[in-house]
Amino acid sequence: MITFLGIMSTNTLTIDQQLSRLSYNIETVLPDGALEDRLKTAEADGRPLKIKLGVDPTAPDLHLGHTVVLRKLRDFQDCGHEVTLLIGDFTARIGDPSGRNSQRPPLTGEDIDANAKTYAEQAFKILDKEKTSIRYNSEWLSDLSFEEVVRLASRFNVARMLERDDFAKRYTEGRSIAVHEFLYPVMQAYDSVVLGSDVELGGTDQTFNLLAGRQLQEAMGQEPQVCITLPILEGTDGVRRMGKSLGNYVGVSESPEEMFGKTMSIPDEMMVRWYRLVTDIPTDEIDAIEAGLADGSAHPGKQKRSLAKTIIAMYQGDDAAIAAESHFDSLHKSGAGAVPPSDVLDKAPVLNVSQAEADTGIGILELFVRSGLAASNREARRLVDGGGARIDGEQTKDPSAVITPNDGAILQSGKRKFAKIVVS
Amino acid sequence: MITFLGIMSTNTLTIDQQLSRLSYNIETVLPDGALEDRLKTAEADGRPLKIKLGVDPTAPDLHLGHTVVLRKLRDFQDCGHEVTLLIGDFTARIGDPSGRNSQRPPLTGEDIDANAKTYAEQAFKILDKEKTSIRYNSEWLSDLSFEEVVRLASRFNVARMLERDDFAKRYTEGRSIAVHEFLYPVMQAYDSVVLGSDVELGGTDQTFNLLAGRQLQEAMGQEPQVCITLPILEGTDGVRRMGKSLGNYVGVSESPEEMFGKTMSIPDEMMVRWYRLVTDIPTDEIDAIEAGLADGSAHPGKQKRSLAKTIIAMYQGDDAAIAAESHFDSLHKSGAGAVPPSDVLDKAPVLNVSQAEADTGIGILELFVRSGLAASNREARRLVDGGGARIDGEQTKDPSAVITPNDGAILQSGKRKFAKIVVS
Repeated sequence: MITFLGIMSTNTLTIDQQLSRLSYNIETVLPDGALEDRLKTAEADGRPLKIKLGVDPTAPDLHLGHTVVLRKLRDFQDCGHEVTLLIGDFTARIGDPSGRNSQRPPLTGEDIDANAKTYAEQAFKILDKEKTSIRYNSEWLSDLSFEEVVRLASRFNVARMLERDDFAKRYTEGRSIAVHEFLYPVMQAYDSVVLGSDVELGGTDQTFNLLAGRQLQEAMGQEPQVCITLPILEGTDGVRRMGKSLGNYVGVSESPEEMFGKTMSIPDEMMVRWYRLVTDIPTDEIDAIEAGLADGSAHPGKQKRSLAKTIIAMYQGDDAAIAAESHFDSLHKSGAGAVPPSDVLDKAPVLNVSQAEADTGIGILELFVRSGLAASNREARRLVDGGGARIDGEQTKDPSAVITPNDGAILQSGKRKFAKIVVS
Repeated sequence: MITFLGIMSTNTLTIDQQLSRLSYNIETVLPDGALEDRLKTAEADGRPLKIKLGVDPTAPDLHLGHTVVLRKLRDFQDCGHEVTLLIGDFTARIGDPSGRNSQRPPLTGEDIDANAKTYAEQAFKILDKEKTSIRYNSEWLSDLSFEEVVRLASRFNVARMLERDDFAKRYTEGRSIAVHEFLYPVMQAYDSVVLGSDVELGGTDQTFNLLAGRQLQEAMGQEPQVCITLPILEGTDGVRRMGKSLGNYVGVSESPEEMFGKTMSIPDEMMVRWYRLVTDIPTDEIDAIEAGLADGSAHPGKQKRSLAKTIIAMYQGDDAAIAAESHFDSLHKSGAGAVPPSDVLDKAPVLNVSQAEADTGIGILELFVRSGLAASNREARRLVDGGGARIDGEQTKDPSAVITPNDGAILQSGKRKFAKIVVS
């Protein structure tokens, strides 16, 4: 594994070395070649680059998708540059005034501070805390006068705004865009002006906003920032971007067992991409894995285990990685219907059932809903129909089955979720 | 002539009487019937209506086009309502920050005050000064925070903005619209909120902005204003809207002679519209004039003289109107080539020519340019080609003619412009 020590200064690495590291696994540098030019200018000036990453101050649960850009930030830190996490608290304090997003009520100052702290704590698993500056954009945005807003907004063009992917889609589909939404890219751009950013990072979906920063900096007489976009990681389904709301994420603070199980569930075709985007394994080793998988000399399951352990080790240490694998094996060694190990069972939820109920019998769907293993009757039915429901290890595919459970019977949903029935 | 005394109170006129007067010669009331409802509410509350007219703080030279809306404001005053001239100084202080309009540099506070004063002085030829309140929107707009701007802008929809005639045209034609331009209707709407306007007046071209005021008032819990649009008066060419830059205007502070001559130059078909929009002649009399012109029983020239005198009398008094007509007649009585009356000649510019030049001869184009009667060689050529150039009353249509002028020779451009040649 390549390791870079946080204490390295810019002078330790040549520009070519920096470029090689900073360009690895990124999607684009805009404009082309600008990063190299900026590195040279900064070196000539004897100063580090100022790197910006904008962060939403919503309650975060950092997952591997977030780590792609954070790891690139860390690369910049290790090359001796200055990183600012910019908390976009200004809009969060306002909420969505159009009222279209009722899920997004205004956050209080306390909420925002707490969220920023939680975000930072998790981000510092990747970033060098000592070298990370945290700023809040309300610091300058709340003081802007209307006159200044007019001046900033005058630098942007309505037609270009409407070319932004999400706006273009809504405009074409006749869905509403409120005028204040055009002010958000203006704010983000102004943040770059205030910070004097040399480089801003973001997902490929942020390209428009990153370029807005360039445009405003240039209009206001600054050297426009270099925009670096990072690939967007697919979730465990291998299709959609990783996200909490899609339930396809692997959180960096989840239990090692969850991380292992979830990583093992990704499609084989995703493995190499995950290796590249979320681990520190050197490129040539990943190339070898990719070749091995292609010619059949490498075993996919084994490589996926190795990936899962690598990821867990990064965030929770080697011991946790090894333990998580053992746990996984104990769940799976005797097939899907095996009795779970006692440590899993000890933590499983308990469903209390009266003796009378147990004697009369309880519908299987109700049983899974009451135990908490299914959120609704509909979900329970899907589980049973799909063959994922077991009682004491025995699959039950009849959704109208009536169960007369013994005390201590074990309900099982899929491979890894259990509940215990206590008859009293 | 109907006369309304400024001292009349609301109670003097019934709602029907007010409606009849206030609805006369307007283009639309939006929404339909809203004026009547608002008059009733105000009467029930025992209060006058608050009427708003937004005014640009650019150097004004009030012309008959402006009087259409000002006269309607006066109607409201005469019905006992409260009129505010709202000076839009906020944007004028900023200028056009996009730099697209280099003709519109930011105005200083002194400029704006001076312009507003000049505007008011002229407007008070129509409005009742004692009952007119003058406000400046910088009073509230300059204090708005970014957060408040975001909230206000959130009430407006991008797609609706783009439907505004001028934006729609520019967007379709691929011409630039800067984002801050979307904030101007927001400001104008917010002005209505701050003033708590019951009614806002404007030309038909202001419909979008007037309705923006309604929308924002409603969103902010106010009774939305009634929007009244007034027709836009065509200029002396009878085609394009009257405007200073088009040179087709009749200014209310111009000399009576100019007012007379310009009014006489309007197309016959415009006469009735001018009678209706810019004079106090009662409708039935205008109807009679219209009928007379249609069946040939009224003489167009005579009716136009009457129109011109009526207009001059409104702004400069009856004597001035009579004198202007005599002046006009003295110019025209003996045809276009007649020697001008001595009072006109006394004011004519003088072109000094040396005896040597006079003997050698001077090209006719040069003569007209040096005299100031033509702005350029090209304009002089057009004048000569068109038969509008005379020397001592004699038409000269040859642009290559070389003139050997006598001392005291008179150059004439068109019907009413003269210069004297002094040979020395």
